[in-house]
Amino acid sequence: MLVVKKFGGSSVANKERIYNVANRCIEDYKAGNDVVVVLSAMGKTTNELIAKAKDISAKPPKRELDMLVAVGEQISVSLMCMAMAELGVPAVSLNAFQVAMHTTSDYTNARLTSIDSERIRAELDARKIVVITGFQGVDKYNNVTTLGRGGSDTTAVALAAALRADKCEIYTDVDGVYTADPRIVPDAKKLDEITYDEMLELATLGAGVLHNRSVEMGKKYGVQIVVRSSLNTNEGTVVKENAKMEKMIISGVACDKKPARIAVIGLQDQPGVAFKLFNHLANHGINVDIILQSIGRDGTKDISFTVDEDKVDEALAVMENHRNTSLICDKIDVDRNVAKVSVVGAGMVTNAGVAAKMFEALYSAGINIKMISTSEIKISVLIDQEYCDQAMRAIHDKFIKSN
Amino acid sequence: MLVVKKFGGSSVANKERIYNVANRCIEDYKAGNDVVVVLSAMGKTTNELIAKAKDISAKPPKRELDMLVAVGEQISVSLMCMAMAELGVPAVSLNAFQVAMHTTSDYTNARLTSIDSERIRAELDARKIVVITGFQGVDKYNNVTTLGRGGSDTTAVALAAALRADKCEIYTDVDGVYTADPRIVPDAKKLDEITYDEMLELATLGAGVLHNRSVEMGKKYGVQIVVRSSLNTNEGTVVKENAKMEKMIISGVACDKKPARIAVIGLQDQPGVAFKLFNHLANHGINVDIILQSIGRDGTKDISFTVDEDKVDEALAVMENHRNTSLICDKIDVDRNVAKVSVVGAGMVTNAGVAAKMFEALYSAGINIKMISTSEIKISVLIDQEYCDQAMRAIHDKFIKSN
Repeated sequence: MLVVKKFGGSSVANKERIYNVANRCIEDYKAGNDVVVVLSAMGKTTNELIAKAKDISAKPPKRELDMLVAVGEQISVSLMCMAMAELGVPAVSLNAFQVAMHTTSDYTNARLTSIDSERIRAELDARKIVVITGFQGVDKYNNVTTLGRGGSDTTAVALAAALRADKCEIYTDVDGVYTADPRIVPDAKKLDEITYDEMLELATLGAGVLHNRSVEMGKKYGVQIVVRSSLNTNEGTVVKENAKMEKMIISGVACDKKPARIAVIGLQDQPGVAFKLFNHLANHGINVDIILQSIGRDGTKDISFTVDEDKVDEALAVMENHRNTSLICDKIDVDRNVAKVSVVGAGMVTNAGVAAKMFEALYSAGINIKMISTSEIKISVLIDQEYCDQAMRAIHDKFIKSN
Repeated sequence: MLVVKKFGGSSVANKERIYNVANRCIEDYKAGNDVVVVLSAMGKTTNELIAKAKDISAKPPKRELDMLVAVGEQISVSLMCMAMAELGVPAVSLNAFQVAMHTTSDYTNARLTSIDSERIRAELDARKIVVITGFQGVDKYNNVTTLGRGGSDTTAVALAAALRADKCEIYTDVDGVYTADPRIVPDAKKLDEITYDEMLELATLGAGVLHNRSVEMGKKYGVQIVVRSSLNTNEGTVVKENAKMEKMIISGVACDKKPARIAVIGLQDQPGVAFKLFNHLANHGINVDIILQSIGRDGTKDISFTVDEDKVDEALAVMENHRNTSLICDKIDVDRNVAKVSVVGAGMVTNAGVAAKMFEALYSAGINIKMISTSEIKISVLIDQEYCDQAMRAIHDKFIKSN
């Protein structure tokens, strides 16, 4: 069996943890498996490197920033191979050049384009554990790139796809994917299996276990992803196409405190108004999540939408620039104090009344709904941020605990 | 003009020094030159990385050690380019892969085999300052290698050769090459010019300004090397084939406190004895410097030689292993308390009496000579370590001060 195992920065933060990871990998190796390990930078290394850069320049060139932070993973992989060698098992570290991991040239946020598997296969054939730098790549001119947030997960899943691995294990500090964040909802249950689509909705919603790009890649190439803890040997959660249908209609409740709501009141009710508004924002790279349009007073219309709170000021500035031309309206309102609570579940499609049940839960808890958005396997509502945890517990109780 | 400028670790140890180097390079760039910069790792970075490795494993695999320490220079070059960008000048950092700097596979002590200059030329043509990692390379399988002590000097000179640079400036914390270490001999004079051969003898002798491999490479490819200070704008010392003949017969006095003397007493006087002795040592990678053979008592002979003090114990162990077979002798003596003092000068060849003058200087100072070794442009003597500084001053007075 060929297994790709990915460990995050906290799993390799010091000598003891490095040895812990080394031992886990060696266990798999000694059972006769081919083992490929993907590592992030140790502990806070990446942040420390970024701080060094910021000390030199407030706005360092992104190419050089990638060149700098890429050393973090190279430190992890070489130390890991030293630990494995010390434990008597041959291991070889490979960075993005050596693999090679090809990406686009979008520094600090590159996308993987292809992976050469020849070197890795040769090293596996020589019965070595292959330890690869996560998070980084090289573009077609051999410049160093990094993949942005959750990049190491993506590296691991992409490697598993390229190598046709039997599974890709993502090690974190939790036991797997839960029906809700156990720190907020104590009754949250660990899921044994979950579909890519459900995981994708949860990842996007800020469940924080797996990055959505890695899940997308897993879905695209059919990579079986296992989310499990680096601190124990529990089975974890398997993410795959045909997850066992469970009794539960929904597989998870998630909360995202990042969004802010912008309301544009009193727009002229004529064709192209919505297009112009969102086109302006798109031109500035501002992603909009939930959109709601309603009829306003006196033949006008109102459009509300959410953006990440760190994009709010930029969005407002863009809109203000067009206030007198293509975006004539009465008022622009902002509410930064909102949170998005969502339920996700493949079972939802065939179950009527999920939305009603969710709204009932919120009503019983006395929580007001500000916006609603639905997809085939997800329902999201916008509420006041302060009720976020309470809302999650109420919804979780209604759907999962009572099952 | 195309200039290669090399700065050591202390020259880039912190933000202020990085900006100091950036400004010096930008000055050259703004004067219309093509500027290639070679950097070592910042301050104590390399030692810190090695300490990390030693914490994981007492004897880490050399391949992984190179993979680890190579990040040091990558940090320097990326931060340097950020500083240059902040100062408004376009710069691009390149590591050993990106250049590419090809080497042998001798991890921790690799030798450069060839350098691709295409990428560097393209970046220079785009009017960028090109900042390159010193000390490191890649072997033919794309493994990371390092060049061993003084590696960044070698990188710089090799790059200057590959790019047919007009000169290669090596920046240090001294003004140039002196006739003796100014800390020991206060009257030491700075040389304006020196030949490769003289520099080579001085470098090998531990004058410590330039590493001998870089001087060898400079001589081989005719690279004009300039040794100068990163702290001031003094002219420095030019190392080239036909250095101006000076009045001085000798160009420098150097002292090396590293050697230890081993004396093998009472060897059988028969053919092959010396061969066998030094062959055993060579097989263990132990370099021997001065060798002296003399006639012993009763038809035996004595052989004395020097090795680096950190190789003494290994040399003794090797010899002890053969004591009853190919190395039958009465006694093996060790003297760890010796130093080698040398005078170097191309003018020596045509000047009779240099040796006599040197021995006179030592005699006047009451210093006993233990061994003597000569080459065309060098005379070395072994003396008690405690007289080292005194010997240097005496010789320097005799040859240089009185000129």
